[in-house]
Amino acid sequence: MLHAVILAGGGGTRLWPLSRTHSPKQFLSLLGDRTLLQQTALRLAAIVPSERLWIVTAKEQELLVKTQLSALPNLSEPPPKVLTEPVGRNTAAAIGLAALHLQRVDSRALMAVFPADHWVTQPEAFTALMLKAAAVAEHDVLVTVGVVPDRAETGYGYIRRGEVLPFALTSHHTNEIYRVERFVEKPDRQTAEAYVASGRYYWNAGIFFWRASTILEELALYLPTLYAALLQIAARLDNSAEETLATIYPRLESISIDSGVLEKSTHAVVLPADIGWSDLGDWTAIYRQSPRNEHGNMLSPNVLDVGSKNSFVFGNDPQRTIATIGLENMMVVDVEDALLICSKDRVQEVRTVVHELRTRGAEVVHAPRTVQRPWGTYTVLQEGDQYKVKRVVVQPGASLSLQLHRHRSEHWVVVRGEAHIINGEQEALLQASQSTYIPAGTRHRLANPGAELLEIIEVQTGPYLGEDDIVRFADLYGRSSS
Amino acid sequence: MLHAVILAGGGGTRLWPLSRTHSPKQFLSLLGDRTLLQQTALRLAAIVPSERLWIVTAKEQELLVKTQLSALPNLSEPPPKVLTEPVGRNTAAAIGLAALHLQRVDSRALMAVFPADHWVTQPEAFTALMLKAAAVAEHDVLVTVGVVPDRAETGYGYIRRGEVLPFALTSHHTNEIYRVERFVEKPDRQTAEAYVASGRYYWNAGIFFWRASTILEELALYLPTLYAALLQIAARLDNSAEETLATIYPRLESISIDSGVLEKSTHAVVLPADIGWSDLGDWTAIYRQSPRNEHGNMLSPNVLDVGSKNSFVFGNDPQRTIATIGLENMMVVDVEDALLICSKDRVQEVRTVVHELRTRGAEVVHAPRTVQRPWGTYTVLQEGDQYKVKRVVVQPGASLSLQLHRHRSEHWVVVRGEAHIINGEQEALLQASQSTYIPAGTRHRLANPGAELLEIIEVQTGPYLGEDDIVRFADLYGRSSS
Repeated sequence: MLHAVILAGGGGTRLWPLSRTHSPKQFLSLLGDRTLLQQTALRLAAIVPSERLWIVTAKEQELLVKTQLSALPNLSEPPPKVLTEPVGRNTAAAIGLAALHLQRVDSRALMAVFPADHWVTQPEAFTALMLKAAAVAEHDVLVTVGVVPDRAETGYGYIRRGEVLPFALTSHHTNEIYRVERFVEKPDRQTAEAYVASGRYYWNAGIFFWRASTILEELALYLPTLYAALLQIAARLDNSAEETLATIYPRLESISIDSGVLEKSTHAVVLPADIGWSDLGDWTAIYRQSPRNEHGNMLSPNVLDVGSKNSFVFGNDPQRTIATIGLENMMVVDVEDALLICSKDRVQEVRTVVHELRTRGAEVVHAPRTVQRPWGTYTVLQEGDQYKVKRVVVQPGASLSLQLHRHRSEHWVVVRGEAHIINGEQEALLQASQSTYIPAGTRHRLANPGAELLEIIEVQTGPYLGEDDIVRFADLYGRSSS
Repeated sequence: MLHAVILAGGGGTRLWPLSRTHSPKQFLSLLGDRTLLQQTALRLAAIVPSERLWIVTAKEQELLVKTQLSALPNLSEPPPKVLTEPVGRNTAAAIGLAALHLQRVDSRALMAVFPADHWVTQPEAFTALMLKAAAVAEHDVLVTVGVVPDRAETGYGYIRRGEVLPFALTSHHTNEIYRVERFVEKPDRQTAEAYVASGRYYWNAGIFFWRASTILEELALYLPTLYAALLQIAARLDNSAEETLATIYPRLESISIDSGVLEKSTHAVVLPADIGWSDLGDWTAIYRQSPRNEHGNMLSPNVLDVGSKNSFVFGNDPQRTIATIGLENMMVVDVEDALLICSKDRVQEVRTVVHELRTRGAEVVHAPRTVQRPWGTYTVLQEGDQYKVKRVVVQPGASLSLQLHRHRSEHWVVVRGEAHIINGEQEALLQASQSTYIPAGTRHRLANPGAELLEIIEVQTGPYLGEDDIVRFADLYGRSSS
């Protein structure tokens, strides 16, 4: 049976300030209303039923993954399986972990691997191609999907094809299968142009098909230490799985499946693909996929432009007005707490900015101003000396944990909807313009019993206002008390 | 005696988004800690004592002018005199109004006129030149200050000099006085270059010296209708002055003193000046006066730059991070509720943006997010459906009016300092983390009895949240109840 595995562990930096360490791009709605993870999952729902859809993600993103998937119409029953890594250890480890699980439920499992954060403009061609890739993988080879390049892109890795292989799948020319001659890293412009002109190179899309058993054998061959550790994990999958992972996983070698296995294997083949693929790897990739006006501009609704050309001006805060005059080939990303303005030919240097901000300990690279929670969102409106103001939005029927804070007091003012609150011994229903005060050390809980959104303004006061000052007593989402 | 008149009625649009209709540039700290009005007043304090300093401003800006001037060390006792216009009617009317007042207190008054929002880098040369200009004005001529141009600026009006006049003030060449041959409007680049090369043209700085009686005679000659209206106002200065102004002033011709009088007069002379003058008329003018790094960039402290050149990146919100990569000749102005990104050679088109935003009824061209009040400031943190969140900062010893709102309720949470509150029949002192709730229709007052700043978070709820929903019962600052 074919199983699809989505790798959703990445913590990209190249789409800052929209992507953050705690909110990487797969969880963002960059193009369309749904997040990239949701779109990837829906694309795969055309190929496998939800019980054979697996997501590998970071432990701290588990709730977010489940929340986003459960919001999809066709994927909730049964829900996809979520595998969590205590820390990220690159794709070889994540794929090995998923292969272990697949083999346990299906010893002949075919495994398809997809990044969670890529983009496909031709979903029907994608589906057809994936089914062919699965058929090839039955021959116990490692199938890579090679995207036919339409420009001399320097931001991607390339695959050079070798001879045609005799898998007689179809008579259609573009569906020939080739042995992989070699993988090459991101080339310079001149080399990239030569690659495209040769017709023998494809972009490495990070999409792979193989039997779970095949990839495990290859891991045993080329990454034996990693494989041995995976066997230790496999032995404990029934009990103490989480503790075993927490002990073993951080010590695994952090290496990509490309470098660790595919570049060495003699079984790698490439299936050429023309599916409108993009890795959305930087702001120009987003720009390229966005609708543009007659001057080549992508402008958010809150942008007023005079005379700009070939520019991308994104703003996600409708309360801000953005005016642009005479921009050319500029990328602008304006969010509540940060602004990026970048010349189009230098978008790769967003990494430099993020690394520098990390070095400075800037919070703006880690958490977004609006933070997703299983019960809704919160947004920091103002941080002052010994106080913080938040807007908290709770979904209908959702509830925060029963909790207390040791160092901060909180005022809650309901501004929309209805709140059910527990505040020490008191329990009450509050409507818009009603409020409650929770002194430090008091157990409290906020819930939305209604059918509409609940929105409150929370004013925190106290000497310490960190998110880690929380003791949870009861939580619908299984979060621990630390 | 010499009197100095500051014209502070302008509502410039070219420095949007920092300047707003209700907060024009003279009231902003664009360069240095003090506002341009404050810096202009301090510059003039070297020439005239404060009882001979006059400010003409819009009625709605009167409190702001007084608040800003009273904060200056040397100008409070006696305070400068503030003349208010019910509506702005350009410089001929404002100067005529000031001349009436000056003549009443001093029939031989010498009157020096200065825009409130210009910049002078050489205050000592300025003082010396102004005293000379005053001496020339005693000869009953209209003295204009002509700035020696150092570049072919197309954004200024020019004055072409005629023959040298025999005012033997000094032997220093640059202090020769010339008859004005003519005034010319903003030229194109080629014309401006010819002007500068000729050595016979000066920038019109909008600084004038004359006797009050002389300018009134010239107004009578060239703008007789305006002059007749001024006489009507003069007849009522002792009683019903405000009502008279409110009736007559809006009907006055709106014309500049340059077009209305100086261009026609045979008595205009020009005194060349080299005082480091700028009108700060657009963002490139601000850039030119700002300290720049070795790459020609002016960067605010919250800016992280990679490889930009000759650019201006201003941000006034320390809670926001601005990253710029590879900008060249760009002007960026980032404030809480708006962002401007403009190619340096198109800054004049900021007007176009502002006019378009006005047409759309956008509040962002009128009020800044942080609004100055005589008692302190308020900042709108969030505007939602039927609610608004504000941060209110009250100066030590200051008090808001006793007031009520018909349509909105308010929650106040003290987050810093001490609040004395009146809330209906209740009166209380609140400390940080204490709060009060004021239902719609309840009289209330907020005051800061302490020696430190008071800061509260105000959550407003109700069907109508406009600032005009206020009934004032008692106000320290003489504001009416509407």
